[in-house]
Amino acid sequence: MINIIPSVEEMKRTAAQLKEERKTIGLVPTMGYFHDGHVSLMRRSAAENDVTITTLFVNPTQFGANEDLAAYPRNLERDTSMAAAAGVDFLFTPTNEMMYPPGYKTYIRVEEWSDLLCGVTRPVHFRGVTTVCCKLFNICRPDRAYFGSKDAQQFLIIRKMVADLNMNLEVVPMPIVRETDGLAMSSRNVYLTPEERADAALLNKSLAAAKELYEKGETRATEIRAAVTSVLQDSPRIRIDYIEIVNTETLEPAGAAGPGTLIALAVFLGKARLIDNVII
Amino acid sequence: MINIIPSVEEMKRTAAQLKEERKTIGLVPTMGYFHDGHVSLMRRSAAENDVTITTLFVNPTQFGANEDLAAYPRNLERDTSMAAAAGVDFLFTPTNEMMYPPGYKTYIRVEEWSDLLCGVTRPVHFRGVTTVCCKLFNICRPDRAYFGSKDAQQFLIIRKMVADLNMNLEVVPMPIVRETDGLAMSSRNVYLTPEERADAALLNKSLAAAKELYEKGETRATEIRAAVTSVLQDSPRIRIDYIEIVNTETLEPAGAAGPGTLIALAVFLGKARLIDNVII
Repeated sequence: MINIIPSVEEMKRTAAQLKEERKTIGLVPTMGYFHDGHVSLMRRSAAENDVTITTLFVNPTQFGANEDLAAYPRNLERDTSMAAAAGVDFLFTPTNEMMYPPGYKTYIRVEEWSDLLCGVTRPVHFRGVTTVCCKLFNICRPDRAYFGSKDAQQFLIIRKMVADLNMNLEVVPMPIVRETDGLAMSSRNVYLTPEERADAALLNKSLAAAKELYEKGETRATEIRAAVTSVLQDSPRIRIDYIEIVNTETLEPAGAAGPGTLIALAVFLGKARLIDNVII
Repeated sequence: MINIIPSVEEMKRTAAQLKEERKTIGLVPTMGYFHDGHVSLMRRSAAENDVTITTLFVNPTQFGANEDLAAYPRNLERDTSMAAAAGVDFLFTPTNEMMYPPGYKTYIRVEEWSDLLCGVTRPVHFRGVTTVCCKLFNICRPDRAYFGSKDAQQFLIIRKMVADLNMNLEVVPMPIVRETDGLAMSSRNVYLTPEERADAALLNKSLAAAKELYEKGETRATEIRAAVTSVLQDSPRIRIDYIEIVNTETLEPAGAAGPGTLIALAVFLGKARLIDNVII
């Protein structure tokens, strides 16, 4: 049995009641159009908590003016079935007007980190992500919140916000779930034509090449970046946004790779902007 | 019996334990150097909640580079006695390093409102206030938090943050407590020389003149501002920072005063910058 909760006030009341009953709450914040990556988060949450809440909200404040807010894929009926099957108890589906009523003015930013990597191309993105996550945490009062590692920078920024603002929850990173050819699952993969979809497998291949190079002893960031670039250039359709090799504790560029170094990339491919990463 | 809690971790554990015991928690966030204004907040909190926590933290992020952070008056021993006498159960006294450890990066801003009135002269001030209040709310988990109305803009901004971010507490405004000559109590009054201290009574007198004018039927903001200015100009030592007549719902300038209009002012007087206000 899954309950759909369409209003902020009802969700707040329900969460307060669950805390009153001393239930542990797991939260899976999503923008919907579920794939197996989302499902893996829901299943883990259902296993680790008394109650799982999944939020389905295509958050307008994390989209730039020229991005895909209007086009973002939606399918509430299918999402509801998938969430129910994954053990979700509550699906929270607020409207934009409930989350950002007229006169809304408050934003949270993790300074510096929000301007790096994806933040260069998407300057308002992470401000929107941290703001909506803070709101969802206050509304749903989770003990744990689950995030996919495809969005590595997002996870690191949310974990930083939670620590800096002394929030009372644990944020849990979950492994990237991939298609059989290695493409990281993403709701945005639906934007790809068949040719683009075939080329998209190069993202993971380029990261695998980087990892292999590192495991053979190459640590120089310049050489690792060149290896990633070289694989991506096999497709004339792929336009590189960035390839960055950074320290996961500081998000600063690493001159040399070492254990825990994050290799992250973003590319434009047709109508999609795709990201992927590996931690070595 | 008052307990002094010097660490964030201990305060978090204590607050979690109190919530576990289903105690209601009242919070009085302060920068210390208590006066009867602070005491009125503590007494109200002690009357309305099972437990009262007062935080004493001279928050560096709400001071600009050229402001009085280093000079801000302190007296922990006297503050502890006064808080105990007012019914406070816990006095939370964290250090700067605990609240803002190395690498701290997360800030909350109520956009637009933080740039008005006091925000013109103090551009980083309200960002620091909202950020530290969010942290203190997460650490202390209050059901209610009490704020003095001398800092009218601060109260309105905090109430806006709490509503916008769906925080789970009530913010309670408390009346301004005044000296016998009408000067609003403030820890910063200690900066005044005897001559300046005498002139400082003009702040409240100027607002009383504005209120009287309004009650006689004058609603034009230009005329009300002129009346306030005229009283303040009785002192050659007072330099006006601003006199603003605004709507408390929007903080927008009101061309005409009406019920609920806020008349707020800030002046420089000797080493002090003083504020006061009245709602008509």
